[in-house]
Amino acid sequence: MTNILRIDASARQARSLTRQMSDLFLKSWAETGADMDIIQRDVGSHPPEAISEGWIAAAFTPQEQLSPEQISLLKTSDTFIEELERANIILISTPMYNYGMPAALKAWVDQVVRVGKTFTFDLARGDRPLEPIFSGKTLVVLTASGEFGFGPGEMNDGAGHLVPHLRTVSKYLGTNEMHHIGIEYQEFGDHRFDTSKAAAAQQVERLAMQLAKERRGL
Amino acid sequence: MTNILRIDASARQARSLTRQMSDLFLKSWAETGADMDIIQRDVGSHPPEAISEGWIAAAFTPQEQLSPEQISLLKTSDTFIEELERANIILISTPMYNYGMPAALKAWVDQVVRVGKTFTFDLARGDRPLEPIFSGKTLVVLTASGEFGFGPGEMNDGAGHLVPHLRTVSKYLGTNEMHHIGIEYQEFGDHRFDTSKAAAAQQVERLAMQLAKERRGL
Repeated sequence: MTNILRIDASARQARSLTRQMSDLFLKSWAETGADMDIIQRDVGSHPPEAISEGWIAAAFTPQEQLSPEQISLLKTSDTFIEELERANIILISTPMYNYGMPAALKAWVDQVVRVGKTFTFDLARGDRPLEPIFSGKTLVVLTASGEFGFGPGEMNDGAGHLVPHLRTVSKYLGTNEMHHIGIEYQEFGDHRFDTSKAAAAQQVERLAMQLAKERRGL
Repeated sequence: MTNILRIDASARQARSLTRQMSDLFLKSWAETGADMDIIQRDVGSHPPEAISEGWIAAAFTPQEQLSPEQISLLKTSDTFIEELERANIILISTPMYNYGMPAALKAWVDQVVRVGKTFTFDLARGDRPLEPIFSGKTLVVLTASGEFGFGPGEMNDGAGHLVPHLRTVSKYLGTNEMHHIGIEYQEFGDHRFDTSKAAAAQQVERLAMQLAKERRGL
């Protein structure tokens, strides 16, 4: 059985390209006949709260010393971490907003990355004191951007902070493997957009089939 | 007169290093005797809402066709844009959370970058259809991070997405000039942290005095 944590970050519903990509991924997976259990977390429609001063204090308080108020402050984080822990595959669908993650997705990241829960901190490790607690997860990132050419040597090289940031964060989600498929040119609406959409759909189908095959019997 | 838009993104109040840096910047400015008017926007304590599907639809609707509900959806964005428009200096103090902007700061960015208000979009411009509307502003970014070495060739090169992302976004805020001063090593709490803090304080004082001098008489 494969647990897939599906996180959708687009503020849009029916008009969202990234939600369509996520739908296609799951449809293609299902068509292989491989088992899956989907946990759905729609942060685009229900943005999590940004962490607060009280949240930070609670996160650094030992479990047994938490006040009832602190327990309640960490409830969303606890839920997100449980969902993450169960996941074999983390499927994040997200548009690029202003060259990075939508605030709603960053709010999820800030709720889910937590000391003692998703990472440990130990100064005895020297200059790299953080270590993830989870491991063996696969991250699939499906994106859409209005512009294009954010790759190395391309026109907007260095201006795309969505995928590189998720790559950095992925370590603390316990992922050992990350795949990215992106649609570009959305705001141009021209043939390049159509080509990009078609290519991404093919890649999504192929990736879903490949991962389902790898996980068969696990 | 210089209008300074002060944006604080830390969830923390008294314990925030970045708020202290911002305080120091304004104190140093005041000591030069140069005039200033401060607009304060505390997104860390009062996180703006993430943009919604309705917000996006409203942002793409011509002003004269907006429904009362849509006008209300854009109210926060309108306020933030007015504050930005008035600003000669944008002073952003922000911690690095999980290698990037706090969700609350990204929510501010997503509310403030808006078609027809902060940028224009025209496909006649070819592959770079976006142009900022404002110009001539100076952005000062004051940061603090638990880890260190996010610069080119340093230990965590490529893993710091806070300052590069703000640099990309800064164009759409109408800034022609950006300064960054950062404290590092916060989670190590050792002599390197003390040194970093002291160096940053000196740089903040110097920068405030330099900018105040440049703006004198404007």
